[in-house]
Amino acid sequence: MRFEIKSRDAAGRICNFFTKHGRVETPALMPVINPNKIIISPGEMKRFFDVQMLITNSYIIWKNKDLRRLALKEGVHSLLGFDGPVMTDSGAFQSYVYGEVEVDPVEIVKFQRDIGCDVGTILDVFGTPEESRERAERGVTETIVRARESVRFKGEMGLACPVQGSTYLDLREKCARVLSKIGADFYPIGGVVPLMEKQKYSDLVRVILASKKGLTPGKPVHLFGAGHPLVFPLAVALGCDFFDSAAYVKYAEDNRMIFPWGTVKLEDVYELPCNCPVCSKISASELKKLDVKERVLQIARHNLYVCSAEIKKIKNAIRNGELWELVERRATSNPYLFEALKELTRKTNKKWLERFEPVSKNKGLFYTGPHTIHRPIIYRAHSRLLERYKPVFKKTLVFPEGDKPYSSFYNMWIKDLAGKKINILIDSMIGPVPVELDEMYPFAQFVFPHIVDKETQMETKRVFKAFTKNSEIIYWKEGGTFESLRNVEEGNDDWDLMRLRAVSTVQFGPECQKVLFNGEIDVVKSKKTGKIRNVFCDGKHVLSMRASDGMFTLKIEGGRLLQKAFKYPRLRVVVDHDAVSFVKEGKSVFSKFVLDCDPDLRPLDECLIVDKKDELLGVGRCLLNREEMLSFTYGVAVKTRETTI
Amino acid sequence: MRFEIKSRDAAGRICNFFTKHGRVETPALMPVINPNKIIISPGEMKRFFDVQMLITNSYIIWKNKDLRRLALKEGVHSLLGFDGPVMTDSGAFQSYVYGEVEVDPVEIVKFQRDIGCDVGTILDVFGTPEESRERAERGVTETIVRARESVRFKGEMGLACPVQGSTYLDLREKCARVLSKIGADFYPIGGVVPLMEKQKYSDLVRVILASKKGLTPGKPVHLFGAGHPLVFPLAVALGCDFFDSAAYVKYAEDNRMIFPWGTVKLEDVYELPCNCPVCSKISASELKKLDVKERVLQIARHNLYVCSAEIKKIKNAIRNGELWELVERRATSNPYLFEALKELTRKTNKKWLERFEPVSKNKGLFYTGPHTIHRPIIYRAHSRLLERYKPVFKKTLVFPEGDKPYSSFYNMWIKDLAGKKINILIDSMIGPVPVELDEMYPFAQFVFPHIVDKETQMETKRVFKAFTKNSEIIYWKEGGTFESLRNVEEGNDDWDLMRLRAVSTVQFGPECQKVLFNGEIDVVKSKKTGKIRNVFCDGKHVLSMRASDGMFTLKIEGGRLLQKAFKYPRLRVVVDHDAVSFVKEGKSVFSKFVLDCDPDLRPLDECLIVDKKDELLGVGRCLLNREEMLSFTYGVAVKTRETTI
Repeated sequence: MRFEIKSRDAAGRICNFFTKHGRVETPALMPVINPNKIIISPGEMKRFFDVQMLITNSYIIWKNKDLRRLALKEGVHSLLGFDGPVMTDSGAFQSYVYGEVEVDPVEIVKFQRDIGCDVGTILDVFGTPEESRERAERGVTETIVRARESVRFKGEMGLACPVQGSTYLDLREKCARVLSKIGADFYPIGGVVPLMEKQKYSDLVRVILASKKGLTPGKPVHLFGAGHPLVFPLAVALGCDFFDSAAYVKYAEDNRMIFPWGTVKLEDVYELPCNCPVCSKISASELKKLDVKERVLQIARHNLYVCSAEIKKIKNAIRNGELWELVERRATSNPYLFEALKELTRKTNKKWLERFEPVSKNKGLFYTGPHTIHRPIIYRAHSRLLERYKPVFKKTLVFPEGDKPYSSFYNMWIKDLAGKKINILIDSMIGPVPVELDEMYPFAQFVFPHIVDKETQMETKRVFKAFTKNSEIIYWKEGGTFESLRNVEEGNDDWDLMRLRAVSTVQFGPECQKVLFNGEIDVVKSKKTGKIRNVFCDGKHVLSMRASDGMFTLKIEGGRLLQKAFKYPRLRVVVDHDAVSFVKEGKSVFSKFVLDCDPDLRPLDECLIVDKKDELLGVGRCLLNREEMLSFTYGVAVKTRETTI
Repeated sequence: MRFEIKSRDAAGRICNFFTKHGRVETPALMPVINPNKIIISPGEMKRFFDVQMLITNSYIIWKNKDLRRLALKEGVHSLLGFDGPVMTDSGAFQSYVYGEVEVDPVEIVKFQRDIGCDVGTILDVFGTPEESRERAERGVTETIVRARESVRFKGEMGLACPVQGSTYLDLREKCARVLSKIGADFYPIGGVVPLMEKQKYSDLVRVILASKKGLTPGKPVHLFGAGHPLVFPLAVALGCDFFDSAAYVKYAEDNRMIFPWGTVKLEDVYELPCNCPVCSKISASELKKLDVKERVLQIARHNLYVCSAEIKKIKNAIRNGELWELVERRATSNPYLFEALKELTRKTNKKWLERFEPVSKNKGLFYTGPHTIHRPIIYRAHSRLLERYKPVFKKTLVFPEGDKPYSSFYNMWIKDLAGKKINILIDSMIGPVPVELDEMYPFAQFVFPHIVDKETQMETKRVFKAFTKNSEIIYWKEGGTFESLRNVEEGNDDWDLMRLRAVSTVQFGPECQKVLFNGEIDVVKSKKTGKIRNVFCDGKHVLSMRASDGMFTLKIEGGRLLQKAFKYPRLRVVVDHDAVSFVKEGKSVFSKFVLDCDPDLRPLDECLIVDKKDELLGVGRCLLNREEMLSFTYGVAVKTRETTI
């Protein structure tokens, strides 16, 4: 089934998922429809709630003779009165709740296929959080056996194979890895409802991450049973695409109103703090007085409106590069969600998340609290700084945080008494920033308070120490003079070269210095802003600099130089022979033509497009990382900018 | 004008404000109506936006001959087509924007009176943040002169006297103090628009706090020009009652959509992350395509819906005791708002805020991040613990955070080798908790993550050290034994007395030990929960304990005992002779009859009700603190529980 990334942020993504009954844009919430008891009709859902896809339970239909006959005769879409895509579950959750189900695993798959489901689910073995490792292992093994058997009977139906493994992370990852190879179409993460019910969000995060690490990135991932908007932003940020909600009805039946920040009992609501079409037409006291049936309906509608708006909020955040901000803000609504974010500060998790994080964003990087400094984008900035960049001179003069861009205040050479130049470094809120990098994302684009929390202070101090460990440090003091410094030289030309060298080193790696600026360098600047626009080396246009994030875009002549400095496969995306002529025409590189890719390339990194023989075809900008390029069969992997012809 | 507190949380409050044109429940947002250019009609506002009160500009009406004539003839309500209360501004803001206004200060007050305004504003001198101290002082002096003059002409109109003083906090406080004494009805905090425009929220907080410290608590406070919901929760928590918004229109004209978490340019909105009646009927792209006039109208409506829902959210939070949670969550939306909350961690501000904070809440105390530990309620808990309570024995055995209530695990006597009893203390997430206080708010009612941020860790460590500074500490280690301890004795009776002594000491002060448990003590417990319900001393019912917060309610016999132990005016609310008979009938004590009050009593503290001669009339629960009791002329000060007759 066709599935492709359209936009991305964090490890989350907006994708198109194509079914026989139309396109679904993810992240998407599939409301659960109980065919025996429909509260909000599928028609109303489509018209008023932007619902694109539904989920219902094939086991309930199968068990009821009338429903079964009708479904087999007219199809599940007709049964539900919904012409969009329909997913079905298989009864695995019922087996968890009621102990057993009386259906054969292959039969229920065939049944789902025969009633025309767009996505049907195997009868997996629901693993519970408390179960023993042995039991969890048996469950995983049996789930895999059933998945292998079921895939033979799926026909044209998309097949969903849930990842199980309880809270044993290695089992989760293994299960995910095996299931990824059997040709299924859709990967739910199963067995997580008990974790969510008990608000064990740390466990939930661990389970999602372990599953995602094992799963192929090219298929949709569904957090099975997640219907509360509180967890949506975080789950999307970790790479979940689908949610399904029975919560909107179940909570309504229990007089509980869903809000993005949690659930509130109707009795604790004095005024409806909501603008949805339900809440804007009724008061809290009127709602409380409605008869049960009508009240359940109205609260269910409210709940579904809230869930639906949260999905839109998430999509907006992805498009604006603000998903982590949204995730961190939500974490303040629930202490256990706050705690769960701590999982993301583990180095192994940071490293995994960093692989999916785009290298630049449209918007500033906003501080929300102690989580911010641990964001993958800051982890990467610090890592690239520490690994790729060395302070140029022996001595370093340190200025405190000040107005940005820093270089508008400190763009001068400073020398010590022996006449040697010294580095200028800003001890910024986000960590150490060499002044020559002060326009590069995120060193220029962060918006932090003037006083941050102590945890952030400790983390930036740690990075500062690591970065300056071989430097001789001089701290600037307000109103002070530099007794150990000789003189101050203004100057601009050398400064530009310093910036070019610094940015290219952090962006591409130190090797680029061997080739990029080895000739006569000409810099063209914006007349309006004075910022570097284009860089020429021996008359050839090699690089341009984006004003928004202070990073380079690669021109074909620059690509030729970098190819010499970086050994295969570094900086490369290797494309299949069939794609060569398309690329040379300047067309984008589609994933299915990618043979290999530098594992260090990240979404929005600049890259060299080469064929199998490492012949340069063009330069472009990655939209995916390596594992995505090798996994997705649809969609663009690299946006080609210039080609060799 | 009648103004009374109905519900409260933080230093915020839900009040009733009575005008000739009806009651307004605060916090309230008054949308600004420009009589020359009405975008959303006052009628629509009342019907669909729950708008209770409007504000318009009397100077604009006065300047326009036609409007002036019409207003004088038919009144401002008829002019606007609004039958609810109307406030008018005077042109002071115009004088700030355009340099000068051509109206006489007394004339504009008389004009407002004559067109029938419910609240009219003096022509104050707008103080800007950048101005010199001298200029600010002159402005304050002139504002006071005009206020004194204006008050003579206010007639039946409520008079609003804005507090000025730029960012000079002593001037603000002085201005507020003087204006509080001249018999005005309504106190705007003026000159703050430039601070909000530049997001100088730290300055805003300082200015609000300085003004509030000077103002009488018994009159409504209006944050003049504040129309963005981002600042509403914090401003309410600091004691602001009214807001006025032109932002809903101004932002709309600029294609900017207001959300609780900030402002977003329409061009950056890909999906409308909102459920309001506007956004639920249109898509982002359709909204972008509307013609200018219609688009401005629709965005203005959206903006007003969002503002209105935020006010409801705040009222809900006050009623549920969750206002600080809401304030702290909002602070993650904007780094400068985050920074502003740091102002509240200053000791002088904590001390002021603590005076208004109720001693107990209906709901648990939820952690949101590094701000939580600085909340006034935790500051008070720590202060009362450190000031009033001493560890009972010499040695202290410390357990780490665990399941609550702690005493269900540790309700036993432990002795050292010499046979001496030792204290049991929990090193909890919220700070040190002696096990005998483990049911008392907030030591039992906090919901924190298992790992908190480093700033919280440092603060609780500090309090822990202070509390245990004279103790000999033994740390419990998992799986460890107590080699230095002799034996463990189970036992329950002494434990109850230990809890009674501990809770009463922290709640009332150590002096109560001299009298409360000096006879034969009988404890009645709940059969269901096993918790202490009633306490008898020599057969007299002296105290009851609330299950929800583990605090005592005072019975009249307990009151008689406490009166002996605590010297006048401690624990007392002193009422006027006129109220004596009402109190004795068991009726509530109204503020206007309060002559004096123990300055250490806080909202929801238990108190003794006495007459001028310190004769005990009854016992009850304070709803207000001292300065409020002495300032409010309407509303209940003390809820009487039992009386001497």
